[in-house]
Amino acid sequence: MKEFIHEDFLLKGSVARRLYHGIAEGLPIIDFHNHIDARDLADDRTFDNITGVWIANDPYKHRAMRIAGVPERLITGDATDRERFDAWAATVPQTLGNPLFHWTALELKRYFGISELLSPESADHIWEKCNAMLHADGYSARGLIARANVECLCTSDRPADDLGAHARLARSDFGSRVLPSLRVDDLTAPDRVTMVATMDAFDKMGCRLADHAILGFESETLQFFGREYARRNWIMQLHIGARRQTSTRLRGLAGPAGGYATIGNSCDIPRLCGFLDELEREGCLPRTVLYPVNPADYEALATLTGSFAEDGVRGKIQLGPAWWYNDHALGIRHHLDALANHGLLSTFIGMTTDSRSPLSMVRHEYFRRVLCDWLGERVERGEMPEDERMVDDLVRGIALGNAREWVLGAGAGG
Amino acid sequence: MKEFIHEDFLLKGSVARRLYHGIAEGLPIIDFHNHIDARDLADDRTFDNITGVWIANDPYKHRAMRIAGVPERLITGDATDRERFDAWAATVPQTLGNPLFHWTALELKRYFGISELLSPESADHIWEKCNAMLHADGYSARGLIARANVECLCTSDRPADDLGAHARLARSDFGSRVLPSLRVDDLTAPDRVTMVATMDAFDKMGCRLADHAILGFESETLQFFGREYARRNWIMQLHIGARRQTSTRLRGLAGPAGGYATIGNSCDIPRLCGFLDELEREGCLPRTVLYPVNPADYEALATLTGSFAEDGVRGKIQLGPAWWYNDHALGIRHHLDALANHGLLSTFIGMTTDSRSPLSMVRHEYFRRVLCDWLGERVERGEMPEDERMVDDLVRGIALGNAREWVLGAGAGG
Amino acid sequence: MKEFIHEDFLLKGSVARRLYHGIAEGLPIIDFHNHIDARDLADDRTFDNITGVWIANDPYKHRAMRIAGVPERLITGDATDRERFDAWAATVPQTLGNPLFHWTALELKRYFGISELLSPESADHIWEKCNAMLHADGYSARGLIARANVECLCTSDRPADDLGAHARLARSDFGSRVLPSLRVDDLTAPDRVTMVATMDAFDKMGCRLADHAILGFESETLQFFGREYARRNWIMQLHIGARRQTSTRLRGLAGPAGGYATIGNSCDIPRLCGFLDELEREGCLPRTVLYPVNPADYEALATLTGSFAEDGVRGKIQLGPAWWYNDHALGIRHHLDALANHGLLSTFIGMTTDSRSPLSMVRHEYFRRVLCDWLGERVERGEMPEDERMVDDLVRGIALGNAREWVLGAGAGG
Repeated sequence: MKEFIHEDFLLKGSVARRLYHGIAEGLPIIDFHNHIDARDLADDRTFDNITGVWIANDPYKHRAMRIAGVPERLITGDATDRERFDAWAATVPQTLGNPLFHWTALELKRYFGISELLSPESADHIWEKCNAMLHADGYSARGLIARANVECLCTSDRPADDLGAHARLARSDFGSRVLPSLRVDDLTAPDRVTMVATMDAFDKMGCRLADHAILGFESETLQFFGREYARRNWIMQLHIGARRQTSTRLRGLAGPAGGYATIGNSCDIPRLCGFLDELEREGCLPRTVLYPVNPADYEALATLTGSFAEDGVRGKIQLGPAWWYNDHALGIRHHLDALANHGLLSTFIGMTTDSRSPLSMVRHEYFRRVLCDWLGERVERGEMPEDERMVDDLVRGIALGNAREWVLGAGAGG
Repeated sequence: MKEFIHEDFLLKGSVARRLYHGIAEGLPIIDFHNHIDARDLADDRTFDNITGVWIANDPYKHRAMRIAGVPERLITGDATDRERFDAWAATVPQTLGNPLFHWTALELKRYFGISELLSPESADHIWEKCNAMLHADGYSARGLIARANVECLCTSDRPADDLGAHARLARSDFGSRVLPSLRVDDLTAPDRVTMVATMDAFDKMGCRLADHAILGFESETLQFFGREYARRNWIMQLHIGARRQTSTRLRGLAGPAGGYATIGNSCDIPRLCGFLDELEREGCLPRTVLYPVNPADYEALATLTGSFAEDGVRGKIQLGPAWWYNDHALGIRHHLDALANHGLLSTFIGMTTDSRSPLSMVRHEYFRRVLCDWLGERVERGEMPEDERMVDDLVRGIALGNAREWVLGAGAGG
Repeated sequence: MKEFIHEDFLLKGSVARRLYHGIAEGLPIIDFHNHIDARDLADDRTFDNITGVWIANDPYKHRAMRIAGVPERLITGDATDRERFDAWAATVPQTLGNPLFHWTALELKRYFGISELLSPESADHIWEKCNAMLHADGYSARGLIARANVECLCTSDRPADDLGAHARLARSDFGSRVLPSLRVDDLTAPDRVTMVATMDAFDKMGCRLADHAILGFESETLQFFGREYARRNWIMQLHIGARRQTSTRLRGLAGPAGGYATIGNSCDIPRLCGFLDELEREGCLPRTVLYPVNPADYEALATLTGSFAEDGVRGKIQLGPAWWYNDHALGIRHHLDALANHGLLSTFIGMTTDSRSPLSMVRHEYFRRVLCDWLGERVERGEMPEDERMVDDLVRGIALGNAREWVLGAGAGG
């Protein structure tokens, strides 16, 4: 049987293959929004076994196991790491069709050189092999990030965080740049003096972005943050529409981010417009990334990228990459379609993982394969011209260049 | 000209053909939600002509005829059966692109061996041929069901129904199992004592499912039903978002289910979550099937399948098969995409017709062809591995096995 | 390099090519809703340079330039026509993936014979060539329309318009018929006596349609208009869901139709049904075209075409062609899919530009290519029969015949 993850995985035509292997594949990664713990990188943490780095903190996998009927004890309960691994191994074949099936295969292949698909039959072998490798050199937290060719990553940090890990990283010889970004969604009435001091401290550590998980847009507090971000030339990320209040039972068992969240109602466009307009009228609308979780919002929010603008700023309002439950091949294609047709794809800042695990960096490879395949199809169908320079530039911009300029150039006077 | 309904209708690649002809085609059918009249089966009704079994009670066809401008007299008025048939024959060519075009061709082919497409030119011949066959052996209500290889079907029955027809069927030698299911959507404040007795009576007749057509989720009555279903290990089906109040004029002419209903607003996710959560907190959330009619809800409700779970239960919350106006090849593909990417396709309980006509059983064939084609495409594109066992099992589960276990195993101690 | 706009642009298979070149390509155009200025046609205006006829009044292009960061001075400010042209030329390569890229190439090719793609490198040459041609015979406003083989176009005219330009056109020898249509969206409480007189005057000039841009459906005023349209057998066009109130700053700079509008919330289906039902109950529901701007509404409104009907009227309620931000190849395909599956595609009245520029008539070519490609795919996949007559008739109807009958036949006793 042909290897599942082969050289041309997801690349159907010759143009797609040329774009991926010739351009995208070798580019470094900027992962501008994730939930990697900066302390793991500062401490250069090592992992006892594959469950710790791969399963224990991954709400995606927990969710799939729950749908498959796996008892909660094996997901978030007191089971051993091996039991958890086996529960996941038994679930993987049932995820056929889900991005977890692809990610699992890619992660085992890229980090551990494993071509076999994970299943109860292969579980023993894979458990042993991964754990042995995790105890070897180059498989610490930093080693895993370095292996993925990461140029820069931006973690999500709470206002109360002292950024000590970030300070240590800045002084270290770690080859990937690690910047903090500010995550403020659980503040309803923050002390503004303290908050300004916090933002100043984040700014000094190189922070370039903040993010808010929101369902509505009317808070005066949100206006305060927007003004502060504009003043610092930070980027405001709005994660829109996730419904985290579902099962009270699972929240009790699995905590507030336990994988039971769902896609909520569509975004209220007039309120979003009103929020952005109010900031703009005061002259303090920051560059903004909109991440809708409901795919029914993609076209509307892609169109909104043309409703606010600033002289000399390319892509002032961005439709962020396919977020959370949309971060699969079809969702990425939907995002590209929406942005291309309703906005300007050439200004797109590209992929970010939003993940807690260093192994998730393979999702950049996944995204780039889908992007190149999507573009290749359009060239082969004659919808885009056979002008290599034009299409190649698009790939370079989306895979790396736009994020480099728009996100990382931001703090340097924007 | 090649026959329109040929062996490989809708099957584009070799994997699709292998999956369909090698696996799906021969499997029996479980049609767990339909509106077939149990009395027709108990009486083993015969039909005077094709209009009676095919056109007179089909709101889909009525709707298409209205769009085509056919006078209402020929649809629901006092026209003769032949006039009605001719009105439908004149409409069929105008349905090109609509599932009615496919279903019409499939139904004529599978039940009557007719390869010709229905049109005013072929109407005479097809009228004569079908009617002659309907008067022959094996074309009674039971004969039509048997011809479709139906293992089990669940009718929809009102609480006031005495289930006499079901009792007669249970005692009969009819090869297909016929179970009642409870339909309660027009009850706003039911007498609970009576209702519990009704449910007990349904349970005794083998009832495993109930269904509600709902626009909102706040009714205390709905909570009462949910608790009762959980207690009995029944399945709660929620048909969400159909807007039946459109044309007052057509309601007057065609009755409350006359085909003029439309797709209503999107589902209110927070309320749906609140409803399910309240039941779960009381420990009485039944297994649930969500059927949204607005396709803009597919991704959200597919995701919701991971928000409530129960140890040891595969697919506790189901996204039901593409319902009503979505029950066409593209809608089925949309459903499969949403469920595969946002949930676990492997737990899917598969197709049900929701139809009043025994001839609609060919929609299982239609669904299976689309399913196999959808899977075959993914295998041929390298998105699923060339592992026959894995993909074959998926087909077997979705076409039959999951419904057998999840629906029919339900009453037997779940 | 192969020419980008070649004979078979967007036509992938042999059936698509046969349908386009054999049928659609040669048919004249009925553009039943646009914003062309009737005075330009009455005066047979000539254009100083390509900026005037192509860029100055095109909010689509302005919007793309804003996303690209082009300073507003070069978009709507005091820049020279050449500066504006250069700003657009620099933006075009950045629109790769957007319909603007296709339209730009098609417009330069069809009207000016230019095969080169517009970019900063080709800007000089294209500026010179277009301007020289615009000063030659056959490039006046009428010449441009005639070149596109337009049989009839319906402009949008305000109630206060005296229709003098239309009167002059009616007396002229211009080969394309030009009819007024009534645009009334900024009236909240019109003087009804005056309004009735206005409608009578429009009717005398051959008006067959009116249109309203609406967010809600409850206005008693809207009922008044609906009744008047029904009485005159006019067509009521409802443009639903555009959010024009976004950036106050851009509204100040660019005026009320300056390209910064966005897609608003989904349509409120119950209110839309209530509005149509109220008219129908009074016996005065006019034939209606629904144009949703939010693509999440397509399936619901395509289904609504079967909720109201009239004996003898084909397609009483129409889902209008993909409107505004949806008017690209993918949006047109989405519209065709929604209408085919949820309504009757065969009744569809086809494309209209909704544009201010005579050059936009190439969008009919664009639409017809997408339509033929979409149909060709379905025939080649076996989803539609290889019955040339049936599919050919569908193309003829959608490209021309249905609009001729449904729109233009309307005033003549309909």
